Amino acid sequence: MHTLGIDLGGTYARAGVVDPEGQIVAAARTALTQRTPDAVVQAIQGAARDALALAKETAAEVAACGIGVAGQLRPGGVVSVAPNLGWRDVPFGQMLGAALGRTVRVVNDLAAAAWGELVAGAGRGVDDIFVVFVGSGVGSSIISGGRQLTGATGVAGEFGHTKVVPGPEGRPCGCGEHGCLEAYVGGHNLHRLMREAVERLGAATRLHAMASGDLSRLTSASLEEAAEAGDPAAKEIYDAAARHLGVATANQVTVLNPARLILGGGVLNHCPGLRRRVEEHVTAFTNANARKAVQVKPAALGDDSGLIGAALLARSAV
Amino acid sequence: MHTLGIDLGGTYARAGVVDPEGQIVAAARTALTQRTPDAVVQAIQGAARDALALAKETAAEVAACGIGVAGQLRPGGVVSVAPNLGWRDVPFGQMLGAALGRTVRVVNDLAAAAWGELVAGAGRGVDDIFVVFVGSGVGSSIISGGRQLTGATGVAGEFGHTKVVPGPEGRPCGCGEHGCLEAYVGGHNLHRLMREAVERLGAATRLHAMASGDLSRLTSASLEEAAEAGDPAAKEIYDAAARHLGVATANQVTVLNPARLILGGGVLNHCPGLRRRVEEHVTAFTNANARKAVQVKPAALGDDSGLIGAALLARSAV
Repeated sequence: MHTLGIDLGGTYARAGVVDPEGQIVAAARTALTQRTPDAVVQAIQGAARDALALAKETAAEVAACGIGVAGQLRPGGVVSVAPNLGWRDVPFGQMLGAALGRTVRVVNDLAAAAWGELVAGAGRGVDDIFVVFVGSGVGSSIISGGRQLTGATGVAGEFGHTKVVPGPEGRPCGCGEHGCLEAYVGGHNLHRLMREAVERLGAATRLHAMASGDLSRLTSASLEEAAEAGDPAAKEIYDAAARHLGVATANQVTVLNPARLILGGGVLNHCPGLRRRVEEHVTAFTNANARKAVQVKPAALGDDSGLIGAALLARSAV
Repeated sequence: MHTLGIDLGGTYARAGVVDPEGQIVAAARTALTQRTPDAVVQAIQGAARDALALAKETAAEVAACGIGVAGQLRPGGVVSVAPNLGWRDVPFGQMLGAALGRTVRVVNDLAAAAWGELVAGAGRGVDDIFVVFVGSGVGSSIISGGRQLTGATGVAGEFGHTKVVPGPEGRPCGCGEHGCLEAYVGGHNLHRLMREAVERLGAATRLHAMASGDLSRLTSASLEEAAEAGDPAAKEIYDAAARHLGVATANQVTVLNPARLILGGGVLNHCPGLRRRVEEHVTAFTNANARKAVQVKPAALGDDSGLIGAALLARSAV
């Protein structure tokens, strides 16, 4: 049996027909012009139609559809809160199921991506993985004994909001709390820290020249480049990010004892040096028994992991 | 069906007949005169015989036996390392099974205690718990969706060896690493820290009078008493312990999203103030969504949790 997976980005919807091993057989994408639930359903419908057409005879076998959403979910496919989409209490599974004429399973986007990595990516062959994604935010997913940890109310894995500088002296985080890992390591916050450095130091930091008048040009890759070139302001931001992420990750590996630690997301993908530093911290600070058991790997499926994982998770919904 | 549970302490073996709800029907204990595997098996045999005699007609139903061991285990009931007993690679399950004429399941002692709390103690009625035990060492056990997390190689839950002061500046821990939570919070280390304070400060610390010439009299309860009375040296040790334990626990609650956080072990049992401080830290530093979902409770079964949990876990071995 094949299933349909949907990746819902900020500006597009992508649909793919996925085989039982997690290979994408056919895929198509449509731009999101609006973010209302109705408009998103329509865009997905278009992408799904195109993907199914490309899959030809395989399309007939596609009974179920999975979709990963960045947000909090309730049972029955209801999206409680999806900040990027501006949604609250949207019965998305039901709406999309009606539009596609198929059973739809709505899952958390990181959970989908981690499941994709487990079955078809960097987690192949093992049952216990800890997946850390550092993009604009910081998230994680835990799969233990082949089962995804959801927690008592579905919010397990909020690694980005563990406290690395607890108390009021910690940097404010987008979640409204202080001192979260994400406030020091997430892409949005790295950008804000770079901007603050340029505003404070002007041409005295190499980041100023790299921005050449447009601060929006600064990316996590710029930060790594400037830090590796020895720029003190960049180095301070970068070293703090590497250390906080590395120690927090090592401590989770100690507690969870995974067979693989999988590192993914835009910031880690574009900063190989940062990924290496995290690995060094995991080697230095994970307790010996857990350290012996863990292999550190970059995520293998890139942007496909969410689509593939959602499609694979939909199999259990049929 | 009833099962037999064994609690193996440092100086005694205690056996109990346990009903399916986790109530102890009958129990007996024998002193451990020696710690060789053969002598331990013999002591357990004595305690089990006495407990079964006390259980009268119920004894006929007892098909299986569970035992919690403080150490690392391999499949098949082999104890790889048990530092307290001085054992290495002992086929304990097989030996004990032959002696008792029953199927024996050997489990980690903390895993057994956590399972006991889940079924018959402070975790009744929920499926997701995080159990923290602070005794002479610091350990934890994670039960998620009703399943105990073992990790890829059976060493999940090593919360005591997560790093709270990473790097060479961290206090040396019994595990050979530096800056572990246990080095700041475990009973052995609290005692060592108090002793160091008395040796450094003499009568200038209240702990000196409390020891009245015998440092072995100082317990974690002495530390709490001195700290609450405002003694600066005691307060420094106590505050660091509370803060490290509180923040580390809050971060695990954020990642694991349990319905209950259960606090047990000798140090937490004898220091109600420390338990209260941990609760305050969990309230202050757990991410909002996970915080809303969690209830903090003291362990409810005391020293019985290991015996009860081992007996309940043996049910699945029949």
